[in-house]
Amino acid sequence: MDKPYVVGIDVGGTNTVVGIVDKRGQILTSGSIKTAKHAVVEDYLDELTELINKLIGEVTTKDQIKGIGAGTPNGNYFSGSIEFAPNLPWKGVIPFAQMLEERVGIPVALTNDANAAAIGEMTYGAARGMKDFIVITLGTGVGSGVVVNGQLVYGHDGFAGELGHVIMRRNNGRMCGCGRTGCLEAYSSATGVARTAREYLELRPEAHTRLRNIPIEEITSKDVFDAAMAGDEMAKEIFRFTGEILGEAFADFVAFSSPEAIILFGGLAKAGDLIMNPIREAMEKNMLAIFRNKVQLLFSELKESDAAVLGASALGWEVK
Amino acid sequence: MDKPYVVGIDVGGTNTVVGIVDKRGQILTSGSIKTAKHAVVEDYLDELTELINKLIGEVTTKDQIKGIGAGTPNGNYFSGSIEFAPNLPWKGVIPFAQMLEERVGIPVALTNDANAAAIGEMTYGAARGMKDFIVITLGTGVGSGVVVNGQLVYGHDGFAGELGHVIMRRNNGRMCGCGRTGCLEAYSSATGVARTAREYLELRPEAHTRLRNIPIEEITSKDVFDAAMAGDEMAKEIFRFTGEILGEAFADFVAFSSPEAIILFGGLAKAGDLIMNPIREAMEKNMLAIFRNKVQLLFSELKESDAAVLGASALGWEVK
Repeated sequence: MDKPYVVGIDVGGTNTVVGIVDKRGQILTSGSIKTAKHAVVEDYLDELTELINKLIGEVTTKDQIKGIGAGTPNGNYFSGSIEFAPNLPWKGVIPFAQMLEERVGIPVALTNDANAAAIGEMTYGAARGMKDFIVITLGTGVGSGVVVNGQLVYGHDGFAGELGHVIMRRNNGRMCGCGRTGCLEAYSSATGVARTAREYLELRPEAHTRLRNIPIEEITSKDVFDAAMAGDEMAKEIFRFTGEILGEAFADFVAFSSPEAIILFGGLAKAGDLIMNPIREAMEKNMLAIFRNKVQLLFSELKESDAAVLGASALGWEVK
Repeated sequence: MDKPYVVGIDVGGTNTVVGIVDKRGQILTSGSIKTAKHAVVEDYLDELTELINKLIGEVTTKDQIKGIGAGTPNGNYFSGSIEFAPNLPWKGVIPFAQMLEERVGIPVALTNDANAAAIGEMTYGAARGMKDFIVITLGTGVGSGVVVNGQLVYGHDGFAGELGHVIMRRNNGRMCGCGRTGCLEAYSSATGVARTAREYLELRPEAHTRLRNIPIEEITSKDVFDAAMAGDEMAKEIFRFTGEILGEAFADFVAFSSPEAIILFGGLAKAGDLIMNPIREAMEKNMLAIFRNKVQLLFSELKESDAAVLGASALGWEVK
């Protein structure tokens, strides 16, 4: 008989969240531990194992678990390792899947957060039934998971789908966290929205905007969103600028894999039409004629608080 | 027993070439007809069928043919149709595969020229044994065939892989044949090379170059190649410029599918190091750190005169 449950693990820089998930994408129980508490990864994994065993015990038994899926920063699906993750306490290459599997006794698969989101949308969310789509995660950075022929695109080394780092401005581009300039992420992440706000405020000292009520270095994308919802013109223009660059990028992505849909996931997606309308307009305007009016733009259908764990858990169904 | 032969058909605007091919990629016999001779597609297909039957009869019998593969302008793999090909005499949607199959009695599959090239490299050429690679065809235009997980990427509508039409210059970009501006194809096709030569000649009236010996409107990429091989500085610079834009584009393609190799195919690939060196330099310089020094840049290994027929024939092995 098919095993009816999987375990999803979302490894974040601050917290690690674990959930036991059924076939319909219901999280039956969940819990979390502090990721950064343990300087040594073995100690962290021991605490994580304890939590996993406790949660499984609350709803079922180990032999009913098909597999464990983990979404981690810099997670490599092929090697099962976390490789040089800048925001985790453990340096170098961590054979996470293997180490956890030895402790829990259930097979573990791992990928990066954006790929986990894509598998989650395909299994439980907006991409159910689709074979060709792209998930773009708009958070502190911009990530992506690309699905072609119903399979996640990992590339020859496991690192495919870094669409936050295509170059959108070849001259005078913004510095990106990756060390290059002009990347999509430098403009269209939550951080990018705040940077755009600071640029606008500095370059237009005469413009009236409620964003001036906030100390300029403390402005966040949430502040810009709140101002835009209150009708602030500059805030709305910041979302227009952000969406336009995303739409330009999406037009190029479509030329690559011709997806049925592009799905927005993550914090910035909460801006709704404020960001989706300019994306749609710029994407259609910049797209090759044969692709126009064919690509759906959708929001994630995974409940936000559960999305990361659900996405990771979906990988658990594929574990061999 | 496995059938040992396939038929490859390369449908070009001027000629249609047919070859009978064995499993090692040997063309046993071949022939051609004029594509543009027949204003009515039925007449064209009748002549094509006659040629196919004659060629098969020269080396084998029909029951030894596994399938027929055709590479055509605007060929759609899913529908088996040629859709709105601007350089063919038959307008609208032509159900080419179905019409030919009815006449010859052997299953027919069809795709566009660049996808056929990619399947050809995977079956007989530089991509043997690879599961993730990209073929870029540098001819009158720029085309591409993308392979992920050992499968050609067709996208949800059959039109994926239009990498000649990603936007490389968002401001003041060159007009492209597709009606937009700044496309890769407008710079890095054979036509693009000739355009760059004309721009350089006009913008630098003082520069000495043997390209001035040719009437400016008649300059071709072949003239620029000949001049560069003879040591002409401006001609070499034109190839450097062409290669740099390709390399910038390749860096973005790698962020998408992380291929093991990118393979250059078509007329402009004959420029060899003249174009490959600046591509390599610009690609590595523009690439995200995790991808550096991992992606092979290769030239097609299909013999040039046979490449199009071989590529198309490779699709014949996949026909169901």
